[in-house]
Amino acid sequence: MRGFFIGRFQPYHTGHHEVLEEILKEVDELIIGIGSAQESHSIENPFTAGERILMISRALDEINTDKKIYIIPLEDIYRNSLWVSHVRSMVPPFDVVYSNNPLVTRLFGEGGFAVRRTELRNRRVYQGTEIRRRILEEKDWEELVPEVVMKTIIEVGGIQRLKDISGSDV
Amino acid sequence: MRGFFIGRFQPYHTGHHEVLEEILKEVDELIIGIGSAQESHSIENPFTAGERILMISRALDEINTDKKIYIIPLEDIYRNSLWVSHVRSMVPPFDVVYSNNPLVTRLFGEGGFAVRRTELRNRRVYQGTEIRRRILEEKDWEELVPEVVMKTIIEVGGIQRLKDISGSDV
Amino acid sequence: MRGFFIGRFQPYHTGHHEVLEEILKEVDELIIGIGSAQESHSIENPFTAGERILMISRALDEINTDKKIYIIPLEDIYRNSLWVSHVRSMVPPFDVVYSNNPLVTRLFGEGGFAVRRTELRNRRVYQGTEIRRRILEEKDWEELVPEVVMKTIIEVGGIQRLKDISGSDV
Amino acid sequence: MRGFFIGRFQPYHTGHHEVLEEILKEVDELIIGIGSAQESHSIENPFTAGERILMISRALDEINTDKKIYIIPLEDIYRNSLWVSHVRSMVPPFDVVYSNNPLVTRLFGEGGFAVRRTELRNRRVYQGTEIRRRILEEKDWEELVPEVVMKTIIEVGGIQRLKDISGSDV
Amino acid sequence: MRGFFIGRFQPYHTGHHEVLEEILKEVDELIIGIGSAQESHSIENPFTAGERILMISRALDEINTDKKIYIIPLEDIYRNSLWVSHVRSMVPPFDVVYSNNPLVTRLFGEGGFAVRRTELRNRRVYQGTEIRRRILEEKDWEELVPEVVMKTIIEVGGIQRLKDISGSDV
Amino acid sequence: MRGFFIGRFQPYHTGHHEVLEEILKEVDELIIGIGSAQESHSIENPFTAGERILMISRALDEINTDKKIYIIPLEDIYRNSLWVSHVRSMVPPFDVVYSNNPLVTRLFGEGGFAVRRTELRNRRVYQGTEIRRRILEEKDWEELVPEVVMKTIIEVGGIQRLKDISGSDV
Repeated sequence: MRGFFIGRFQPYHTGHHEVLEEILKEVDELIIGIGSAQESHSIENPFTAGERILMISRALDEINTDKKIYIIPLEDIYRNSLWVSHVRSMVPPFDVVYSNNPLVTRLFGEGGFAVRRTELRNRRVYQGTEIRRRILEEKDWEELVPEVVMKTIIEVGGIQRLKDISGSDV
Repeated sequence: MRGFFIGRFQPYHTGHHEVLEEILKEVDELIIGIGSAQESHSIENPFTAGERILMISRALDEINTDKKIYIIPLEDIYRNSLWVSHVRSMVPPFDVVYSNNPLVTRLFGEGGFAVRRTELRNRRVYQGTEIRRRILEEKDWEELVPEVVMKTIIEVGGIQRLKDISGSDV
Repeated sequence: MRGFFIGRFQPYHTGHHEVLEEILKEVDELIIGIGSAQESHSIENPFTAGERILMISRALDEINTDKKIYIIPLEDIYRNSLWVSHVRSMVPPFDVVYSNNPLVTRLFGEGGFAVRRTELRNRRVYQGTEIRRRILEEKDWEELVPEVVMKTIIEVGGIQRLKDISGSDV
Repeated sequence: MRGFFIGRFQPYHTGHHEVLEEILKEVDELIIGIGSAQESHSIENPFTAGERILMISRALDEINTDKKIYIIPLEDIYRNSLWVSHVRSMVPPFDVVYSNNPLVTRLFGEGGFAVRRTELRNRRVYQGTEIRRRILEEKDWEELVPEVVMKTIIEVGGIQRLKDISGSDV
Repeated sequence: MRGFFIGRFQPYHTGHHEVLEEILKEVDELIIGIGSAQESHSIENPFTAGERILMISRALDEINTDKKIYIIPLEDIYRNSLWVSHVRSMVPPFDVVYSNNPLVTRLFGEGGFAVRRTELRNRRVYQGTEIRRRILEEKDWEELVPEVVMKTIIEVGGIQRLKDISGSDV
Repeated sequence: MRGFFIGRFQPYHTGHHEVLEEILKEVDELIIGIGSAQESHSIENPFTAGERILMISRALDEINTDKKIYIIPLEDIYRNSLWVSHVRSMVPPFDVVYSNNPLVTRLFGEGGFAVRRTELRNRRVYQGTEIRRRILEEKDWEELVPEVVMKTIIEVGGIQRLKDISGSDV
């Protein structure tokens, strides 16, 4: 069975990581779609798709699995009615969709797919918005992401980039 | 050192396979970009990006390597002047580009990248156009692609699709 | 004389219906443009163009007219300066524009068209925003749309869709 | 039963007309999709969507039917894998697709739709290419289209437009 | 040395004018990029690119300089990662970027360009938002723009356009 | 009177130059639109808009005129029916269009503009296709363009770029 999980991963955090560990127990192969792949250098979407691939790939190296994992950037299609077909054309066939996002759930549901709700532990802190806020306010954010992700963010100059974009550095 | 190789892979064939085997001797990590990812169901581009990912991924399983390989679909950007930036934003950073295509070579060259020409053995038969032609004319094509690719093409109904599209089945 | 009336019709409601009844007294033929035709499955735009065509078409069947009516979906063009030309190329020629929207009025005015302001009775309740809010809050909304529109919304699963998208169903 | 028929209608001709007369015997309601709706003023696509709506609408007035007919312009989506979803979102639900085009047939077939091949009588002359060629060469073309279409082409200045575009008038 | 300065110029005002006078002391040639060139007829972007070219060009005529000045409209590319390449392809080569916008600064910085911060005098009143607000509220705005710009705004009917769009005229 | 002249200028050549000299005798101000501005690095369109601006600007410096000249890159809009509106929004208002292109002539004519046919002397050799062919075949091309254009082409590495793109250098 091949599963599909989608997120924007701005950045990839421990909440994603824990969900993926759970999903990997259920599926034989897993496709991870990186949504809004074309976005970067904005407060909502600071990291490029390439940088996000690096984060996810390195974090998954730490999970000891020999299951096949596909990490696939997905550009926005800007039309909800076409989105499921867009995803289907860009990734290998899959049997089940894992998501907690109501729109994703609805669209795949209307498209006839099996959808399973993912349970994110500690949803309030394990989310991109919170992490980006903490980086900007120079509060502890490192504990909310896997260590290799923290290193990748620093390596690509992500902290300064976020500050520059927000104008908070002035 | 991380290398970048791009192709449309319509379909992935033995020529690609041999080149990748050579490149994998030189690099530590390899990014394989799937060009014109948004195209499918045409005579020039019969297979979806998802199907091409499947072909490449399965073929590479046969190469016994523990080097990290990223397979990344790349949608067309339709502006040559932006293409290198587009690729750079969509994939992890890379050090060297492998290509034989003059436009790819020129664009990455102008962008300041190191480019190495790839030598494709037996270029005349190991090419997508030739394989698609043979499929349509019901001539031997199976020998031109790795066995798992042949099976994937059959599995996704690729032969009938190509015939339907070309109208040759009428 | 051929008139042109445009709306998003999310959904088509009694306010639209009454205006169209008035316009039909003045024109020989009427073009109804469905704006933002490409949008659907969002809180602001829950219904597809196809579903909106169905609503309008069925509602107009109840008006006893033998005047010719064209119902034409119009995708957004995202450039105000091109919008009038876009509309003109997509629909048959028209003599007068009916609208209350200041931007529509301005753009057609600059384009040299005759524009007539439409008077919507009871503007506060007869509007899409209000109807979508009531559907979500499970308040009376059925009275704000023609009966066939109410049935169409139920038939296409519109109530559950709106709830799913808004996440209010959780 | 609701049927769907698609064409570019550059221009609408007697071949289309005869096919539609046949289809109208089989269906309760008919959707006519106008493909490449955004194209105009080129040799392949001289007429705007609005002009084509006019042609079809007037020609259908001559068929004495009280069956409901929807005429809907469809802009190109440039991605075969999304095309069926695009059409489905833009038009009311339909049960059967009528087409002779291999790509249309294939795409709707993969999408799970029932497809019926249409038989065009006298295919060699009843086609847009032939009619546009004859208009340019000032040969008899009027006999290949319904009379109201001929009048519409003249009314919108289509003959001179085609000549101007082709440069043949110099 | 060729400098590059970018703004949306909705409208061109005395703040821009003073900065350009300063920059012109430092450079041999100056490129002025008009951002969001495709936008117009909205409250944020009331003027077309053509109208903005007219404002800037006339205002610069008043500065007695024989240095070469290029005024170039730049359409949005909607992808931050491609924006620097987009600008570079659309304008002649330049040596230094003048900007106070954090995103512009960051993107050109990552692209390896020299960036100089511009000091806008009296930033609170010399800004487009303030001027558009004053026009709408019929307060003194004429003093915030060069006289030729004021005349151009009146000439193109900009005041009424802004009121119409905002609906404030009703 | 303000005139409008459009070309792709791949490259700007003596034929363009002579026409512009003629037009400048008739108009008070001249707008030169650079068509397909987004194209570059292809055999048909080797030069970026920025490079073409440079060519034109330098060539015009040699014409001793104090008439105001606007050089404005115009991205393609891919819809003939919107093209005139697109041009109008991007450039200052103009009174007359100078062109020899049948499509340009037709579209501006339908849009109600005065159009004057330009007479290009020696049309066979003074054209972009011929010049690009000669560059590729290493035949005399320098005589077909103004000297400053020749120098600009060399300065931007245009000869090698054209050879690389065409693959003719292998």
